[in-house]
Amino acid sequence: MSKKISIAIDAMGGENSPDKIIEGIELFLKKNISNQDFILNIFGKEDILREKLKKFKINSNSINLINSNSTVSDEETPMTAVKNSKNTSMWNCIKHQLDGKSDISLSAGNTGVLLVISRMILKMLNDVSKPALAGLWPNQKGVNVVLDLGANIECSDQNLVDFAELGSALFKSLFPKIKPKVSLLNVGSEEIKGTEMIKAASKKLKNLSSEDNFIYNGYIEGNDIMKGDSNVIVTDGFTGNIALKTAEGTAKFITNNLKQTLSKNILTKISLIFSYFSLKKFKEKLDPRKYNGAIFLGLNGTVVKSHGGIDSIGFYHSIDLCYKIVKGNLMNEIKKNLEHSKSVK
Amino acid sequence: MSKKISIAIDAMGGENSPDKIIEGIELFLKKNISNQDFILNIFGKEDILREKLKKFKINSNSINLINSNSTVSDEETPMTAVKNSKNTSMWNCIKHQLDGKSDISLSAGNTGVLLVISRMILKMLNDVSKPALAGLWPNQKGVNVVLDLGANIECSDQNLVDFAELGSALFKSLFPKIKPKVSLLNVGSEEIKGTEMIKAASKKLKNLSSEDNFIYNGYIEGNDIMKGDSNVIVTDGFTGNIALKTAEGTAKFITNNLKQTLSKNILTKISLIFSYFSLKKFKEKLDPRKYNGAIFLGLNGTVVKSHGGIDSIGFYHSIDLCYKIVKGNLMNEIKKNLEHSKSVK
Repeated sequence: MSKKISIAIDAMGGENSPDKIIEGIELFLKKNISNQDFILNIFGKEDILREKLKKFKINSNSINLINSNSTVSDEETPMTAVKNSKNTSMWNCIKHQLDGKSDISLSAGNTGVLLVISRMILKMLNDVSKPALAGLWPNQKGVNVVLDLGANIECSDQNLVDFAELGSALFKSLFPKIKPKVSLLNVGSEEIKGTEMIKAASKKLKNLSSEDNFIYNGYIEGNDIMKGDSNVIVTDGFTGNIALKTAEGTAKFITNNLKQTLSKNILTKISLIFSYFSLKKFKEKLDPRKYNGAIFLGLNGTVVKSHGGIDSIGFYHSIDLCYKIVKGNLMNEIKKNLEHSKSVK
Repeated sequence: MSKKISIAIDAMGGENSPDKIIEGIELFLKKNISNQDFILNIFGKEDILREKLKKFKINSNSINLINSNSTVSDEETPMTAVKNSKNTSMWNCIKHQLDGKSDISLSAGNTGVLLVISRMILKMLNDVSKPALAGLWPNQKGVNVVLDLGANIECSDQNLVDFAELGSALFKSLFPKIKPKVSLLNVGSEEIKGTEMIKAASKKLKNLSSEDNFIYNGYIEGNDIMKGDSNVIVTDGFTGNIALKTAEGTAKFITNNLKQTLSKNILTKISLIFSYFSLKKFKEKLDPRKYNGAIFLGLNGTVVKSHGGIDSIGFYHSIDLCYKIVKGNLMNEIKKNLEHSKSVK
């Protein structure tokens, strides 16, 4: 029997924790009822967790409780995190992974602290200059990877090249049958567009483009992100964060207006009877909870950050993401990409 | 009788010109049929324009044809524009404004060339370091101004401060009853967030915040742009361009999915009968043509760039925007803002 996929879960981070974490775990167990190839290591106050497991009637051989008395607070800053967060549920998650007992870590807690202690405990990969936060975006043809979403607000051309290696490895681990196409986010598609830094990154990516790691597809503009012609979209953390949040804000603006429109009067309410199932599917397709989980890449190990305000369904999706990442052997894909790049240089 | 509002219109730029331009003008004339306080100076090949005016049965004392034999092509680059674009319809528009015969210029032609020749002919305002492209965005409470949308891909803190002065003056010219609140687009709302450049701009804006020019409202994230709590959102041209186009792409993605959903089967088609008028209003509210026109600010005069691919309704909205900007005395609002800043320094 092959080794089980082992996921370390911080049960204490984010709003309404540990309830939503345990409920998300329950959902994951239900969807994988006949599946024995994983183990979920749950970190938090053991007595509270036991009580919650009882509440949600969870009794599974695939879970493993590990006591951690303290937790990282939302007010903790990255500056003092190293001193204050030792032996918290978050810290113990990452430590478990460092010790080889977990393959990946997942937390809905304080983002800044998670990034700092992940980097401190797991350390950077040798050939990567800066780690990045990657996210999954829906598009007309499926899903793409966008990075960096905010780990580095200022980047060099080499950072962007590293992000292309990491992001395309992530895409391959999730969709092994597709050769990833990588694009750089820019203010135009012509070669002369953009900053000197972006032009330098583009030159390097052209040189690295190959069937063995990724196909470099040139520049892409903001309105093309969701067209689905590129699988991996690379940008600095400042621009990526603004793009992601602007997209979220726009989606909310439109769906709020649509909701108001369709509940306006008796006629629109009647229309909802006829369109109910179709609109339900529309809502499901665009449900942001399906894309919950930012992936922290570039370390000796992978850490996934769930949105702090997400509910149990969103948390379920981030556990599922962790499972798929390990099953797709992300760390091996990253290694292969970095080795290919070294051979080209 | 006070001086008429005089608008210079390049009739030859953009797709389907001059037809859509003349049709847009016809719409504007119809909506202002009892209004005699403006004159539209239309630049292009006079014989073609006369023929089109006849086709659309336009016969008005408020229009003035000015012959220009050549036009700026879409392939022209900013590098060679100055040499090649002299005496084109676009050039003659701006020249007309420089000579004091028009108050504002409008073109749907080549953006790069328009920016270069506008700057060359009109020259920069004394106290502004770089000009900016501003746009109007819909939000939950109305409309806001966002700038820079792509004129400057790299900016200093002082550039951002200048953009705040220019953008708030634009907002005041369009909505004279509202004291504009200005925000900086950033990756978080806390003071420690962002680049050193943004922090420096924030410090300067705090110092300039006053009832007389604009109220500085701190940082704003991408998802807050459309909430409507800020009237003027300031960012560098790289980030602004990506944010604008990401919002456009997201809106298109969602509305395309909605269209597919609502025309899927017989039930959803029946639902459309009941929701037809409400959905029509929803569509009208979000119609991007209503926000057509990027305003080039920071010169001794104002130039408006209509989207090249827009139709006649979109072009009508950009003529209307020009009319409102001149009526609101934008250049005077800019002057007042810049003088206030000088007095604070």
